[in-house]
Amino acid sequence: MNVEFINPFISSLLNVLSTMAQTDLTPGKPNIKKTEVAVGDVSGLIGMVGPQTKGSLSITFDGELAMTVMERMLGERPEKINEEVTDMVGEITNMVAGGAKNLLGDKGYEFDMATPVVVSGKDHTITHKCDGPKLIMPFTSDFGSAHIEVCFDKL
Amino acid sequence: MNVEFINPFISSLLNVLSTMAQTDLTPGKPNIKKTEVAVGDVSGLIGMVGPQTKGSLSITFDGELAMTVMERMLGERPEKINEEVTDMVGEITNMVAGGAKNLLGDKGYEFDMATPVVVSGKDHTITHKCDGPKLIMPFTSDFGSAHIEVCFDKL
Repeated sequence: MNVEFINPFISSLLNVLSTMAQTDLTPGKPNIKKTEVAVGDVSGLIGMVGPQTKGSLSITFDGELAMTVMERMLGERPEKINEEVTDMVGEITNMVAGGAKNLLGDKGYEFDMATPVVVSGKDHTITHKCDGPKLIMPFTSDFGSAHIEVCFDKL
Repeated sequence: MNVEFINPFISSLLNVLSTMAQTDLTPGKPNIKKTEVAVGDVSGLIGMVGPQTKGSLSITFDGELAMTVMERMLGERPEKINEEVTDMVGEITNMVAGGAKNLLGDKGYEFDMATPVVVSGKDHTITHKCDGPKLIMPFTSDFGSAHIEVCFDKL
């Protein structure tokens, strides 16, 4: 698995947030995670299973950024990270994995997606437990940061 | 999906903790989650994908319980929820899903597992975003509580 493998996930997230919420994120530099830990307030996670490999994806948002995305989608700002926000984060996670699935399928990497799970809690951290390298991609915005992390076994 | 579907996950968790860490949990009453939310300090999550269905599993531990399990496995108590503890929670999640996979496979429900992801953060909450009912199973022990949650689409 090389760093370019994360590109379909990056482009899917940028596309989803731009299309659904007119929100532009600025991608940072993708890197192989060693000690760096993505910290955030609300995260979407999804498992991926294919004939060649299996893995996991997480997208972690600062609370402020998640609320802003929600406000732009619905026209109303939630007071806190409520069920509507976690639904939205789950849906974004699904869409990003689905977009990457299509792009990677074109390259011969097939996988099916599990259903998403959303974690909320101030400053939680996510650790992917797979054999392959963990790719982490930071994003910044005017409203806080986001991180994608992807890990696949044996790729 | 009925409540009995969660039994293979329950028996796997009881078996894993008893075998690996001589720790007995007391199962509570399984129920279909509506508003109840599992709150904990460290959680293992794993996606499941099969020909008939897909879903997700989470196992959430109080920090105190996770540390006690760790202490009993290694003979030394960690000072906090460190990488050893998250590795252990990921491994337990893998083993519980694997045990349930075998039991459910015998009944004709086949699925493959993604790789586990571990969340740590004081009092975080987990929300499974799938179409089917969410089954939640509380456990108590002398060292704090644990919760299993399982959700499958279309079962």
